[in-house]
Amino acid sequence: MKITALAGGVGGAKLADGLAQLLPAEDLTVIVNTGDDFEHFGLHVSPDLDTVCYTLAGSANPDTGWGRSGESFTVLQELSTLGQETWFRLGDQDLATHIYRNKRLKEGAPLSLITRELCAFWEIRPTILPMTDQPVQTKVITDVFGILDFQDYFVRHHCEPVVRGFRFDGVETAVPAPGVLEALESADAVVFCPSNPWVSIDPILSLPGVRGALGNQSVVAVSPLIDGKTVKGPAAKMFIELGIPATALSVAEHYGSLLAAFILDDADRKRGYTFPIPVLWTNTLMKTSADRRRLAQDVLNLIRSL
Amino acid sequence: MKITALAGGVGGAKLADGLAQLLPAEDLTVIVNTGDDFEHFGLHVSPDLDTVCYTLAGSANPDTGWGRSGESFTVLQELSTLGQETWFRLGDQDLATHIYRNKRLKEGAPLSLITRELCAFWEIRPTILPMTDQPVQTKVITDVFGILDFQDYFVRHHCEPVVRGFRFDGVETAVPAPGVLEALESADAVVFCPSNPWVSIDPILSLPGVRGALGNQSVVAVSPLIDGKTVKGPAAKMFIELGIPATALSVAEHYGSLLAAFILDDADRKRGYTFPIPVLWTNTLMKTSADRRRLAQDVLNLIRSL
Repeated sequence: MKITALAGGVGGAKLADGLAQLLPAEDLTVIVNTGDDFEHFGLHVSPDLDTVCYTLAGSANPDTGWGRSGESFTVLQELSTLGQETWFRLGDQDLATHIYRNKRLKEGAPLSLITRELCAFWEIRPTILPMTDQPVQTKVITDVFGILDFQDYFVRHHCEPVVRGFRFDGVETAVPAPGVLEALESADAVVFCPSNPWVSIDPILSLPGVRGALGNQSVVAVSPLIDGKTVKGPAAKMFIELGIPATALSVAEHYGSLLAAFILDDADRKRGYTFPIPVLWTNTLMKTSADRRRLAQDVLNLIRSL
Repeated sequence: MKITALAGGVGGAKLADGLAQLLPAEDLTVIVNTGDDFEHFGLHVSPDLDTVCYTLAGSANPDTGWGRSGESFTVLQELSTLGQETWFRLGDQDLATHIYRNKRLKEGAPLSLITRELCAFWEIRPTILPMTDQPVQTKVITDVFGILDFQDYFVRHHCEPVVRGFRFDGVETAVPAPGVLEALESADAVVFCPSNPWVSIDPILSLPGVRGALGNQSVVAVSPLIDGKTVKGPAAKMFIELGIPATALSVAEHYGSLLAAFILDDADRKRGYTFPIPVLWTNTLMKTSADRRRLAQDVLNLIRSL
C-alpha cells in the first residue's frame, strides 16, 4: 500500500516515523511544510524538514521535540558574544545541517535535491519532499503585534499574540516540488499527520495543484487535538482565537470534503460527535516509538477498511 | 608616535600584538592581507584578519597559530558526516565569526565595517583594517598542480607543490579599504611585520595607491626569515623555489627601495651582510607575550633613531 503523508513538525514527524516502521521505504512519501522556513544568522533554516528528518533518522531530541539529541550550543554561545539574538536555539550539530543546506542553495541546488542528499547521508529511506522548492512564508496575523513571521510568532513571542488569521506569502506563484503532485495522485491513500491544520497542513494544501491532486484520493486525517488540547504547539489556541471551538470535530470540519476518514483520540468519545465519514477512536498520543508504530497501524487499518 | 603596520598571519599578528602592548590604541593601525580570504562551506573566511584579531583579543590558540584557544569541532565533525571535506579545521567558536561575517556581508556590509564591529565585540582597541573591501584572490602558480587557490596550496596541499609565481586576482580593480591610504600617509612610520613577503605583504603592496602612499614614508620591515628559515609557513621554501636565496638579505632586497630600515635576527649576524640602510640585529623570535613587546620596542626604537 503506497502512502503519502503530509506533515509539519513534531506530531507529524512522529506519525511519519510510525509509518516508516511499518511500510517498505519505497511505499512511503512524506511531504513536509516549508512555510516556517526562515533565514537565521544568514542561513536558510527548514525547521519542519529537519524535525521530520531527525525523527526518521533517530537523531531527534526526544525531550525538546526540535533539534538533535546530545546537542551542544558552542557556536550559539559565541554568536551571543557577537551581539546575536539567541531566541532560536541553534545547536552545533543542527547548525551543520543549515550550513550544508545554505552552501548547496548557494550553489543553486533546489531544496528538494538538498533534502534528498541529506536523507542519503542520514540513511533515511522513505522519500521526504519539501512541499515546494520556492520560498513560501507563513505569516501570522495578530491583533496587537500585526503581521508576524512564523518563527517570530512561534519562538520569539512564544505564540502569545492573539491570532486573527494567516497568510502564506508566495504560495500563489510557488510550484509543488518535483514529485509532490505525483506522490499525491499515485498513492493508495493520503494521510494528514496530527500537525497544526492552520500552519503545517494548510500551507501544503494552498499550493497550486495540491487540492486538485487530492480530488480523487482517500484522505485520512489524524486529529492533533486530544480532548480539546494539543500535545505541543498552538493549534488549540489558534482555533479558539479564530472563534472556532478547539475540538477534534473542528479539525475534521476544517479539512471538510477533502476527508475520506478521520482518526481522533479515545478521550473524545465522550463528546458524542457524529461524523458523515468513517472515523476511528483510538489512542493518538505518541510517547514512545511503539506508540508511533501502533497509531500508524491504526491509520493503515482504517485505510484498508475504506 | 603613530604607527601603521602591514600584517598577514601568525608572525604579523604577534608583532602587531607587541605594538598594541606599547602604543596608545589610537596610534596603531594594522592593515591586514585579505588575499587568502576564501569561501568555505558557503561562508566567507578571512584567515589573516581572524588571526590578527584573535591574537589581539588574546583568544588565539597559542599552539596552532590559527583558530581559537579551547576550541571544539562539533560542527565540523557533523559536516564530515554530510560528506564535507575537513582539511580546513573550522572550530565551533571560529565558525561563529564566519557566520557573523557571512550574515553581515549578505546584508551588504563591507568587510571593513564588519571588522570594526568584530573588534568592538572583542574589545580590540587599535584600528584593524582589511586591505580592501573588494575580493582579491591570491593564486599560487605551481609546477605540477597548476594555479592553486591559496588555501588549497596552503592547507590542503600542505605547501608541497613547487612554486613558480603568484597572482593576486582582482587586485588591479580593487580599492584599498576606507582608511588604508590615510593610515599609510599619516603614520610617523610604517612597519612591515614578519609576515610572508610573497603572499602576505605583497598583496597589500599590489593594491592601487599603496606604493604611492608609501613613497614618502619611513618603512621598517622585520625579516620573517631567521637564519634562512621561517618560524612557520612556506616563505623560505618559496624563495628557494623562485631561485632566490632564502635569507634575510633577500627579504630586504625584495622590498628594495621601499625600506628606510630593516630588522633581522641575531642569528644572521654571522652572515656578514652589508645593507645600504640602517639595520638592527636583535632577537626576532616571539615565543611569549613579552617577546612580542620586546621586538615591538626594538622596532619603535629603530624608528625613533631614523
